[in-house]
Amino acid sequence: MSAAAWERGGHASLMLEFERARELTEKLAEPLSPEDQTVQSMADASPVKWHRGHTTWFFETFVLMDNDRGYKPYDKRFAYLFNSYYDSIGPRQPRPSRGLITRPDVEEVAAYRAHVDCAMQALLSRCLDPEVQAMIILGINHEQQHQELLLMDVKHLLSCNPLQPAYIDTPLSESSGEARCRPCNPLQPADAEASQPPSKELPPQAWISYEGGLVDIGHDGIGFAFDNESPRHRVFLPPFAIASRPVTCGEWVQFIEDGGYERANLWLSEGWATVQDKSWDAPMYWSHTEPGWSVFTLGGPKELDPAEPVCHVSYYEADAFARWAGARLPTEFEWELAAVGQPEKGNPFDRMEIHPVPLGAQSSMFADVWQWTSSSYSPYPRFRPAEGAIGEYNGKFMVNQHVLRGGSCATPAGHARTCYRNFFPSASRWAFSGLRLAKDV
Amino acid sequence: MSAAAWERGGHASLMLEFERARELTEKLAEPLSPEDQTVQSMADASPVKWHRGHTTWFFETFVLMDNDRGYKPYDKRFAYLFNSYYDSIGPRQPRPSRGLITRPDVEEVAAYRAHVDCAMQALLSRCLDPEVQAMIILGINHEQQHQELLLMDVKHLLSCNPLQPAYIDTPLSESSGEARCRPCNPLQPADAEASQPPSKELPPQAWISYEGGLVDIGHDGIGFAFDNESPRHRVFLPPFAIASRPVTCGEWVQFIEDGGYERANLWLSEGWATVQDKSWDAPMYWSHTEPGWSVFTLGGPKELDPAEPVCHVSYYEADAFARWAGARLPTEFEWELAAVGQPEKGNPFDRMEIHPVPLGAQSSMFADVWQWTSSSYSPYPRFRPAEGAIGEYNGKFMVNQHVLRGGSCATPAGHARTCYRNFFPSASRWAFSGLRLAKDV
Amino acid sequence: MSAAAWERGGHASLMLEFERARELTEKLAEPLSPEDQTVQSMADASPVKWHRGHTTWFFETFVLMDNDRGYKPYDKRFAYLFNSYYDSIGPRQPRPSRGLITRPDVEEVAAYRAHVDCAMQALLSRCLDPEVQAMIILGINHEQQHQELLLMDVKHLLSCNPLQPAYIDTPLSESSGEARCRPCNPLQPADAEASQPPSKELPPQAWISYEGGLVDIGHDGIGFAFDNESPRHRVFLPPFAIASRPVTCGEWVQFIEDGGYERANLWLSEGWATVQDKSWDAPMYWSHTEPGWSVFTLGGPKELDPAEPVCHVSYYEADAFARWAGARLPTEFEWELAAVGQPEKGNPFDRMEIHPVPLGAQSSMFADVWQWTSSSYSPYPRFRPAEGAIGEYNGKFMVNQHVLRGGSCATPAGHARTCYRNFFPSASRWAFSGLRLAKDV
Amino acid sequence: MSAAAWERGGHASLMLEFERARELTEKLAEPLSPEDQTVQSMADASPVKWHRGHTTWFFETFVLMDNDRGYKPYDKRFAYLFNSYYDSIGPRQPRPSRGLITRPDVEEVAAYRAHVDCAMQALLSRCLDPEVQAMIILGINHEQQHQELLLMDVKHLLSCNPLQPAYIDTPLSESSGEARCRPCNPLQPADAEASQPPSKELPPQAWISYEGGLVDIGHDGIGFAFDNESPRHRVFLPPFAIASRPVTCGEWVQFIEDGGYERANLWLSEGWATVQDKSWDAPMYWSHTEPGWSVFTLGGPKELDPAEPVCHVSYYEADAFARWAGARLPTEFEWELAAVGQPEKGNPFDRMEIHPVPLGAQSSMFADVWQWTSSSYSPYPRFRPAEGAIGEYNGKFMVNQHVLRGGSCATPAGHARTCYRNFFPSASRWAFSGLRLAKDV
Repeated sequence: MSAAAWERGGHASLMLEFERARELTEKLAEPLSPEDQTVQSMADASPVKWHRGHTTWFFETFVLMDNDRGYKPYDKRFAYLFNSYYDSIGPRQPRPSRGLITRPDVEEVAAYRAHVDCAMQALLSRCLDPEVQAMIILGINHEQQHQELLLMDVKHLLSCNPLQPAYIDTPLSESSGEARCRPCNPLQPADAEASQPPSKELPPQAWISYEGGLVDIGHDGIGFAFDNESPRHRVFLPPFAIASRPVTCGEWVQFIEDGGYERANLWLSEGWATVQDKSWDAPMYWSHTEPGWSVFTLGGPKELDPAEPVCHVSYYEADAFARWAGARLPTEFEWELAAVGQPEKGNPFDRMEIHPVPLGAQSSMFADVWQWTSSSYSPYPRFRPAEGAIGEYNGKFMVNQHVLRGGSCATPAGHARTCYRNFFPSASRWAFSGLRLAKDV
Repeated sequence: MSAAAWERGGHASLMLEFERARELTEKLAEPLSPEDQTVQSMADASPVKWHRGHTTWFFETFVLMDNDRGYKPYDKRFAYLFNSYYDSIGPRQPRPSRGLITRPDVEEVAAYRAHVDCAMQALLSRCLDPEVQAMIILGINHEQQHQELLLMDVKHLLSCNPLQPAYIDTPLSESSGEARCRPCNPLQPADAEASQPPSKELPPQAWISYEGGLVDIGHDGIGFAFDNESPRHRVFLPPFAIASRPVTCGEWVQFIEDGGYERANLWLSEGWATVQDKSWDAPMYWSHTEPGWSVFTLGGPKELDPAEPVCHVSYYEADAFARWAGARLPTEFEWELAAVGQPEKGNPFDRMEIHPVPLGAQSSMFADVWQWTSSSYSPYPRFRPAEGAIGEYNGKFMVNQHVLRGGSCATPAGHARTCYRNFFPSASRWAFSGLRLAKDV
Repeated sequence: MSAAAWERGGHASLMLEFERARELTEKLAEPLSPEDQTVQSMADASPVKWHRGHTTWFFETFVLMDNDRGYKPYDKRFAYLFNSYYDSIGPRQPRPSRGLITRPDVEEVAAYRAHVDCAMQALLSRCLDPEVQAMIILGINHEQQHQELLLMDVKHLLSCNPLQPAYIDTPLSESSGEARCRPCNPLQPADAEASQPPSKELPPQAWISYEGGLVDIGHDGIGFAFDNESPRHRVFLPPFAIASRPVTCGEWVQFIEDGGYERANLWLSEGWATVQDKSWDAPMYWSHTEPGWSVFTLGGPKELDPAEPVCHVSYYEADAFARWAGARLPTEFEWELAAVGQPEKGNPFDRMEIHPVPLGAQSSMFADVWQWTSSSYSPYPRFRPAEGAIGEYNGKFMVNQHVLRGGSCATPAGHARTCYRNFFPSASRWAFSGLRLAKDV
Repeated sequence: MSAAAWERGGHASLMLEFERARELTEKLAEPLSPEDQTVQSMADASPVKWHRGHTTWFFETFVLMDNDRGYKPYDKRFAYLFNSYYDSIGPRQPRPSRGLITRPDVEEVAAYRAHVDCAMQALLSRCLDPEVQAMIILGINHEQQHQELLLMDVKHLLSCNPLQPAYIDTPLSESSGEARCRPCNPLQPADAEASQPPSKELPPQAWISYEGGLVDIGHDGIGFAFDNESPRHRVFLPPFAIASRPVTCGEWVQFIEDGGYERANLWLSEGWATVQDKSWDAPMYWSHTEPGWSVFTLGGPKELDPAEPVCHVSYYEADAFARWAGARLPTEFEWELAAVGQPEKGNPFDRMEIHPVPLGAQSSMFADVWQWTSSSYSPYPRFRPAEGAIGEYNGKFMVNQHVLRGGSCATPAGHARTCYRNFFPSASRWAFSGLRLAKDV
């Protein structure tokens, strides 16, 4: 939920934001069959049905149960099924086993959503304490996070299907003037002729320099932010430069062709071990098809476009690429300083195109891929998680992950933010994660 | 498919048997939602949707492709999805990943079945070579095997759901005069009062003695049998006695209460390691609920009935129980000798009750549970698998498994047979597997 | 201990056999440093030091503690360290952690051996009950088994060393007239010229036919045998033929060159999965060196001799080879019938050559490699393990293993026996295991 | 090697430092048998023999091979055996398999050390370039690091022995006036009466406040430091307070008794998962013995002394304890600021006592245990690893580890340093790692 919307405030606005968020989840789930919505393709991913139930449980648990005395839970047993990781709330279905729950079925989850929406709408029509409003706004932002997760998870699930099906039979780019999601058959690789011609090569990236010094980092208190973006605090930065755009697929191909995945000296030790163990030789979802590369997208397989920002790379890969390029990753503070004042971006999902757009001559800091930073995900000085179960939202994950900044083609509009801190473990690749270079000056 | 049906022969009969088998699969799948039919709950189990597709692929591959020149496969890519383990046919979806295939969806699998059924019916209306007829009969028996597997797999899947749902909302036993499948909630354990009163205690088992000597074992050539039941051959047996009925749940409770799962000296070394590793303290699907035990069934959880044959025990447990009881498991040859002439049994599924029936004063060798024998699953002397892919049906599994004899409450009527050799690895428990004791005399 | 020795009986003979067995263990350990004797190279293997301690503990526990009131254990804590798998005796060091015990050191284990030997000699000089004598004879045979295990385990350990050192710097074959154990360096492959010229090709194997019928199998009660070789019982065998010699390395090379490790249809399903999982493409200890193969032996690496019996193959490989050869493995009963009356063999270790000897024109059933049979390791009819802890010796391992018959170049003289049943799991390769073909006639 | 020694400079001094370092390694290994020196007790640990060889290889590879044309390597194959992780140098024995190398034996490793020492002494007697001198100083500091690792690894190895032997039979504290290393027997727990009486309870810790602001962090260029301590750079710190002493065992017992290991809300999510997975309920090497706790030390088991600094805790535990105490861990910058000007400490090993000393009223920042900081191990701004293989020394490990500061009872004298950055993964406990609290003011 955007800061602007929050500022406009008022019941009407909050109700509207609530409804929009809830509707978008349903819109994203709609192209998916009950089968698609139920299966869990790896321990890190969750079924779409679970995302739909969990976001509903969040409102039920943190808003309705605490603030609506007359509220009757849809089914008390759902607390076990749809709790994600809130130990204070009680026991829960183990994460790797979320895909075993075939009942309640998709239809009943829809009924659960309707039940909670109805109670929420009644609550929202009343005059609410600021604390309750704040919790609802948190719930909306929480649901937006799960919208992106839902898309990440569906993409992974469909990629596991040897038929390589498309999420939705809509052209990935309507400007191409033709359907790109032909009946795809992974066993008979995609017909290259039918694909959109790759974008022209881009001019090389430029470097934008900053003097550094003492800068203020973190949420300034205006509008919504997650607790991990606060408190705003002072950081000392040496001078640095940051790239004018993210690294592209074309540049990544050069890295591969220069032996990027075969030269131990480019890699962190853990990263090199991972490359060997998992036999990585390209970003996730890439596959080698003569004469070039194809990528699996939510629209099915397509030819690689060298002008697109590279996506689905791990921290290890981003770090190795930067070393290869004679540069480094930015710290999250450098990134934030460089992003101040830039228009925040997100996908309004008015077209169901969910893939990074090729870069133009200019590119904002928010350019369709999350950008790995060199910063470990740590609490800001004087960070205090909220009291109670909601305090488990962010704080307990602050170890052995790295911060990503920006936002991606799968981030809902209104959800990206200059001070936003996304985070994933170093080997994760199923997020829409790319990188932008930095260097010392 | 029963020998009798086969003997009656003729097109009409074969068509009828084919249709019955195909319809039963659909009948068994019918109570299940698309969600239920798609998920795979462990590597050993398969999704119901996959069973429906695989049995169809079997007819398509081994009957239609070889014998109907005009036949056009429904979708060539399904050969990859629905091949189980026939290396000669080509590559296939890895077994532990069958549950990742959300598309084709349930509806399309139904269309696939209809397409193949239609072609099969056309073929069956023609005059067929004996070899083709034999392959169709094999396909029918193959489908019957998958009907039992389907039920095993669904039971396992539903048992993984913390809501402990019932496969079908039908009384497990209509004779009880009341619905036993109340809305079940595992988190709020089953209401004992609503359960059927347990059967009365049985009189103790009797021993039936045999003199042994040279006996003929294996299929006598009349009617259908799998290749692993042949050739008929001579075996020398010492005198022995076999129990008049399978071991009951009540007897198993005594074993537990006597420390059966805690005394290393009762167990094979591998079995004891498995008990420790998996923390087994009762048969699969049992749970301790004061004051007794409840069991999860396809009708949901219910109170343990001591007169029922114990079910869902591994070879290791069966062997340990026999040692505890001062007896042993029969060899498969002893079992077969004892079963000669007894009426073969199976579940006609005219009521959708799929749980072992409490034992009466008399009990046949076919008593609702498969019975572990001490015989390793090995080829009979002079066994030759068929030429070609179909030779992979049985032979390649003849190592590190034990033979079970009889048939279970989930075995379709007409599928059980005196010389039938079922087989599972020593630690498997999800089959409807029990035991019958034997001893030297 | 041989039957003959046992028959001669008397104190003097038993004391002599005891001393010989104890001395041979020390002789086999002598070429090994404290470092060599302490490390455990895999969970299935044990350190040499442990073998020395365990065989000592066996006499202490099963003979001295029960029969010598004045006996004072060397160190009570050793019962924990050196118990192998006797649950009835008490808790023990977990098998995979035997290599963590650096103290007691090798010297103290020698002192432990001396302490027990001394007490045993005193006991042996007295008049002993037959039961005590039988237990001592069991202990001697137990020690002989561990002598072979010790050699298997040392071979595995040394093979893990990239320097590929030899167990002992003695020519493998003195007939070659020159030292074959040059300072070996795996990183600089063995100098082929220095190797012994391979033996000439053998004439093809012959088939020896048997009529079968009712035969008596198992120990006849004369001399020592393990409990698993009894009771002697009757088995019905169809006619069969058995090969005149084991399969050779040269024949195995043909199997490899004919795609033996690449053709799924030659393998049991489990075997094929193992081949893929472990990337097997040759027997254990073979490595491809242009233009041929070299093998790692206890004398270091050497060129492959095609006339040697193939060794260090698993059951899966033996079974696949037999299928490829259009034959099968013999049952253990067939093997025993064919071996009756042949001179039993073993290695007197008068020269420290421990590698299969190339086959000549004639070859006995005991030909330097254990021979896999198709028989699962099961109890003979009416088998009863002994009462008490000693009953754990054999019986509890009778599942998921296959019987090997014969004896190997690492089997001590006097230990091989026509009715001897060795056994290993299907994937084991570190025993000196080969195969001999059989077929139906 | 201390900065002071380095500053005094000159050949004589460098030769002396070299000899001291080399001798100390031998002194630390001396109480250990060949058996003790060869075994590897876990993948993270290395055999003592390997440490002795690897530190020797370091001088051979990075000093002698590059600077002594006449130098002839002791054995070229040792490059494979004793390379730790330098990919640029070539292939190497996999880390988890270092314990499989029984040959070369301990004696030959001693000969290898003598060979290299001899060549080094000849080199050191010549006039050396500053670059060569710097490399030798690095080699000395490298050897000192391995001296501490050697002690960590030996402690772990001996702790795996059920006999719980002592590293050396010397009183842990001579002030106790009696031998504390009685023949220890873990199976018969240590006799509490024989133990040293625990120290008196300490006065509670005090807080020392700092104003923060812009501070300079990192090595100031005087004397030796590892590359990861540079460049010196500016950091902005908010005001904070740091504890006057590390957390004690007595305080840790309170944490345990207050349910510290049972309350999910005290833990990072990964930490809680680790606690459950590994069943942690106390620091490593603690065991519960009525009425209190005993700890395994290099002197064998002893009664827990509440006044000792707690040792062998993971980052997860340190973090959870701090949360429980209403405090937090310091950042590495806060720690360094607080340590400036304090006398650096280390163990001169003049007595072979290697266990944290109970805390007195006063305690320096260097107090016998490494202290976890909240700082992830990251490169300092503008960090550049050295060119060539030596650049792999530190840089490639800068991910998913946390920095520890200070030094421990196992850190050689002259090796500790205010700006020293030690680092371990979050779940590691075998280092001598404790913690010191901090808080916001």
